[in-house]
Amino acid sequence: MITRYDSQLLQRAVAELSKLPGVGEKSALRLALHLLRQPENTAISLGQAIIDMRQNVIYCKRCHNISSSEICGICSDSSRDSERICVVETVRDVMAIESTGVYRGIYHVLGGLISPADGIGPQDIEIESLVQRVPRENIKEVILALNPTIEGDTTAFYISKRVKSPGLVITALARGMSVSAEIEYTDELTLGRSIEGRTLFEQ
Amino acid sequence: MITRYDSQLLQRAVAELSKLPGVGEKSALRLALHLLRQPENTAISLGQAIIDMRQNVIYCKRCHNISSSEICGICSDSSRDSERICVVETVRDVMAIESTGVYRGIYHVLGGLISPADGIGPQDIEIESLVQRVPRENIKEVILALNPTIEGDTTAFYISKRVKSPGLVITALARGMSVSAEIEYTDELTLGRSIEGRTLFEQ
Repeated sequence: MITRYDSQLLQRAVAELSKLPGVGEKSALRLALHLLRQPENTAISLGQAIIDMRQNVIYCKRCHNISSSEICGICSDSSRDSERICVVETVRDVMAIESTGVYRGIYHVLGGLISPADGIGPQDIEIESLVQRVPRENIKEVILALNPTIEGDTTAFYISKRVKSPGLVITALARGMSVSAEIEYTDELTLGRSIEGRTLFEQ
Repeated sequence: MITRYDSQLLQRAVAELSKLPGVGEKSALRLALHLLRQPENTAISLGQAIIDMRQNVIYCKRCHNISSSEICGICSDSSRDSERICVVETVRDVMAIESTGVYRGIYHVLGGLISPADGIGPQDIEIESLVQRVPRENIKEVILALNPTIEGDTTAFYISKRVKSPGLVITALARGMSVSAEIEYTDELTLGRSIEGRTLFEQ
């Protein structure tokens, strides 16, 4: 490999770039050669931005979301409903839910899901801190917004057992047909769930 | 945007990553969040590798290929045929031709193609240095290995006019059907060229 590129520097950059998800060695080489053709500053800005982000990024002490300060913008926003916690796997899920604009409560980012197959147990993700938050912050509703996978369902089940207490409502995201989906092309599982979970027709 | 991510550091990394070719803002965010989940060293190695490569990479003084020293491994390999120059657009073309294993001559990397539409003239790419190399290095054959586009053809035509001299053979890559292609599915232009350029059947 090293002789193939005849440049250790290029070789190293390609090796590092190809560690990124979805970037194979060919794409990595394409990206590296692209950066070599750009003004020097473009490559340096990129490299420095990656290093700075990884070294200095802050996570919210309360909800573990990415933040610009100790307590994130959502947690410190007094106009939000602080008695409702939406439990998600990742920071991206927070962004996705925020972009819908329909949720005005706060969040709790687990940073992963329970996955015995990958050796990830409850102690490896932010479950304990959630269990403590619920009574301390006087939470009235915990919304489990986890992916409908084995890991997601396992984690949701575990959390529901741990946080359960009288007066606390535990909910999960509604399952059903996508808004633009057609019945004919909807998979059976989804269609079945949308029948079981049918709602009153609004007139 | 900044408020959407609630972290200037993440914001900046996403902005820089999305400048890469083929990387939209969504992929950039995915890459950035991936790097945040990795050990700190992974992200730092990547950032530093990009910076080091761009700041310190060396190009061969003779053929302009990426190199680990002033004269690249191919130019300094005495077992190669130094009277045959293969003219290519990019470093990637050198790699592609090297990986075939059939070429034993040397190279000249133009670093681009003449493209009046993009304001790129002969003086913007490494044509003058090629014109000087041919007599100085006593070259016997110039192989024009440029893409069959308007820019490639224009550049090939221009170079052929500039380097022309008695005793110098100028060749171009053969055009024809791909090795695994079927006649039925080959486009007309390629099929036409493969008829015009038909070769003696080897028995």
